[in-house]
Amino acid sequence: MAFVHRDFLGLADYASDEIRFLIGRALDAKRGKRLPSLAGKTLAAIFFNPSLRTRLSFQIAMDRLGGRAILVNAGSDLWALEFDEGAVMDGATSEHVKEAARVLDRYVDALAIRAFPMFRSWDQDRGDTVIRSFAREARVPVINMESAMEHPCQGLADAVTITERLGTTTARPFCLTWAWHPKALPLAVPHSALLAAAHLGMEVRLACPPGYEPDSETLAKVKELAVGGGGGLEIFHDQAAAIKGAQVVYAKSWASIARWGDAEAEKAARKELRGWQVTGRAMETTAEGFFMHCLPVRRNVVVADEVLDGPACAVYDEAENRIWAQMAVLSAVVGR
Amino acid sequence: MAFVHRDFLGLADYASDEIRFLIGRALDAKRGKRLPSLAGKTLAAIFFNPSLRTRLSFQIAMDRLGGRAILVNAGSDLWALEFDEGAVMDGATSEHVKEAARVLDRYVDALAIRAFPMFRSWDQDRGDTVIRSFAREARVPVINMESAMEHPCQGLADAVTITERLGTTTARPFCLTWAWHPKALPLAVPHSALLAAAHLGMEVRLACPPGYEPDSETLAKVKELAVGGGGGLEIFHDQAAAIKGAQVVYAKSWASIARWGDAEAEKAARKELRGWQVTGRAMETTAEGFFMHCLPVRRNVVVADEVLDGPACAVYDEAENRIWAQMAVLSAVVGR
Amino acid sequence: MAFVHRDFLGLADYASDEIRFLIGRALDAKRGKRLPSLAGKTLAAIFFNPSLRTRLSFQIAMDRLGGRAILVNAGSDLWALEFDEGAVMDGATSEHVKEAARVLDRYVDALAIRAFPMFRSWDQDRGDTVIRSFAREARVPVINMESAMEHPCQGLADAVTITERLGTTTARPFCLTWAWHPKALPLAVPHSALLAAAHLGMEVRLACPPGYEPDSETLAKVKELAVGGGGGLEIFHDQAAAIKGAQVVYAKSWASIARWGDAEAEKAARKELRGWQVTGRAMETTAEGFFMHCLPVRRNVVVADEVLDGPACAVYDEAENRIWAQMAVLSAVVGR
Repeated sequence: MAFVHRDFLGLADYASDEIRFLIGRALDAKRGKRLPSLAGKTLAAIFFNPSLRTRLSFQIAMDRLGGRAILVNAGSDLWALEFDEGAVMDGATSEHVKEAARVLDRYVDALAIRAFPMFRSWDQDRGDTVIRSFAREARVPVINMESAMEHPCQGLADAVTITERLGTTTARPFCLTWAWHPKALPLAVPHSALLAAAHLGMEVRLACPPGYEPDSETLAKVKELAVGGGGGLEIFHDQAAAIKGAQVVYAKSWASIARWGDAEAEKAARKELRGWQVTGRAMETTAEGFFMHCLPVRRNVVVADEVLDGPACAVYDEAENRIWAQMAVLSAVVGR
Repeated sequence: MAFVHRDFLGLADYASDEIRFLIGRALDAKRGKRLPSLAGKTLAAIFFNPSLRTRLSFQIAMDRLGGRAILVNAGSDLWALEFDEGAVMDGATSEHVKEAARVLDRYVDALAIRAFPMFRSWDQDRGDTVIRSFAREARVPVINMESAMEHPCQGLADAVTITERLGTTTARPFCLTWAWHPKALPLAVPHSALLAAAHLGMEVRLACPPGYEPDSETLAKVKELAVGGGGGLEIFHDQAAAIKGAQVVYAKSWASIARWGDAEAEKAARKELRGWQVTGRAMETTAEGFFMHCLPVRRNVVVADEVLDGPACAVYDEAENRIWAQMAVLSAVVGR
Repeated sequence: MAFVHRDFLGLADYASDEIRFLIGRALDAKRGKRLPSLAGKTLAAIFFNPSLRTRLSFQIAMDRLGGRAILVNAGSDLWALEFDEGAVMDGATSEHVKEAARVLDRYVDALAIRAFPMFRSWDQDRGDTVIRSFAREARVPVINMESAMEHPCQGLADAVTITERLGTTTARPFCLTWAWHPKALPLAVPHSALLAAAHLGMEVRLACPPGYEPDSETLAKVKELAVGGGGGLEIFHDQAAAIKGAQVVYAKSWASIARWGDAEAEKAARKELRGWQVTGRAMETTAEGFFMHCLPVRRNVVVADEVLDGPACAVYDEAENRIWAQMAVLSAVVGR
């Protein structure tokens, strides 16, 4: 089975067969196999938020496929966008997403968009207005470079990393653990990491303090996919218990949905949670597990130096695999 | 006749034959004809102001011609420039345009520059100091990506759009109408749109409230060109009368020269003018006319949704034609 | 002898033979000789500070060698970096240079970095923490695009300019003169200019007001290299005496190390020093000398109009030679 969708918006939208197809393509490319060329094709990569890895890896991925990426910084290069249907635009917004999307689809062969949550209301953020509006209005494929709900290119790179290290993944224990962090962070990466492990049919363990459970609909999807693939989903409130025996330990901090957008309440709530850090001692309790994180990572806060600098660290592979994963996605959706 | 000038600064500077030559080239390129290659040629596109369509369309145009564009954001990438001859530079400016231009002409094969008006004095703005200084000091061709006086690449794209829709343009009724907008906007687009229609020998109708007439010297040039090409120029203060029977309706808002730079006075003056909006009903009075706007456009302020979303809307063609028009310009001035 | 180092961090680190090898390569390229191709190679050029010439010339140099440069603006594109070993990152920094460097070396074939001094303490600035940390952590070559201590690409371009104008350089009089300027500027350019002339075995004259001597260790290195090459180093506090009979006059302003980071004290100290400007009359006392400056330059402050606009001006050649010098460096370190 190939990848049959026009867009690449979130791992929750695709069948596990499709994700495995993309993983295979990424590993083929990494082994030197030439993917179908994107010569003459242009991707516009639109950033509503800052980025290092994503900016570089999309440019390099298009380059290696023979095409090219044009980067657009929405803050300075784009006009303030309107998303409401029928709006009377006499206020702050000066271009409707309809025009932006319909002009861009005359200019380029695909759009990639990064738009973080606004942190005002989870109900609003989970609708992913920006990327879903572009996907609705543009006639060319749209790729998600991180929205409020998902970071599917990261998730796919994570799946590639796990596959290349473990081979068979069915029913293998994968632990995603929440970590303390001074700031309230988005849910996109944990969502896509959970979905990636679920697509691989792993025994997914989610470790977080009570009240830090991710989006419930996403969790239901994770369970459905994991069970369907021969694994399952279990939620732990005890980090040590969740890490013990795991073959993959993925650390990430995120904000609680209950306090979404309330920075003060969030700060107070996590005051006692500084212990949620992955240490070398914790890693010793795993089944020769390796450590994952999407980067950037705060050393000695989210994870101890000895883990990042030790042999179990897979974070640089994950970062490199962004390129191979994105080449697979780009060749599947742009190269059609 | 070919295009014989070194620079492309404003439609007012060229003969109608030259503009027709460029329109022909643009339409050739759009139909798939290969223009002379710019392989090995580099354009530096320098932005003193933000841009989406222009940034993308210049990069893509250079790309399709086999060359490449390097983008420079003057605000962050350039040092504050001095333009005065003989200045003792012990103040805020740290690089003279002489050095900037003379270094850039060692680095690249052409310069494209966007520099909006400062909105302090119309007399000062109409001199287009930034782009005229670069054109004077640099030995390579300079292309105007929008100055205070003109946006000739937009104007040329408009002329391409009109030509491909109407075929013969001589004495056909073209209406440029002022529109209400919350902000005081520049005159470059209306100037170049009027000049484009004049070069095509159209019967040019300018509709605006009293006191909103554009630059008088430019209007004189519009009249001279339009009459010379078999058309004419008429000024209306009644929008409905100007739109009635037109084959092209081009909407755009701009500030009045009499209140140039006085945002408060401008705001007060246009309080009663919100009726200046192009509606579906107004379009029904045209001679099967189509609607144009340079974008970004404020929906239901400058033009109603039903026009933009209806069959008479040509704004996406205009945006696409930026690429073909600029390819014609670049191949004419850089490829010499 | 070829260039045998992995990195290109400062002219003080290399043997004069190596610098001569690079000058030869640059002049070969300028004369049309094809340097070894960098096809398929990517350079990430990371800017912690603004730049015009450097941004353009690195992109163009990579382009001409068949490779490509990706530009990264550290302020907006990069996360705030941590440089301290063992830091507990619960403050403002969110990515350690270890991760940044180790990810970048998976993505690209070389790094170029611009990081100006912080102007808090000279002892701290002279350690060049940013570029030295990247050079330590990354496995790919690192090129200095200007640090606190050196601007070696400028210095090499200067050496190319001197060589192409003078031919033999041994024992020829080269004068670097301090100039008045409203701001306290870094030492990188004067350091690299002195080292460039020293590598060429010139009779190096440093003219500056008392207390404006550059870094003492760098001066010792300049003396050692100059003497080793058949020249020498002499320090003047009288600008006219230093310029008289020189074949090269290089003007540049810089801050005094004694008042490093104290803008007020620096301003007061240079109040009486506005006479330190290179004029046409001063140039008449040279031995048909030519005038150099790295640009941007403040006209009629650092140097008079008549010098920049006259036949003795070499500043545009210097700027152009940045491209050829950087092609030599890139082909030597990236193309290995």
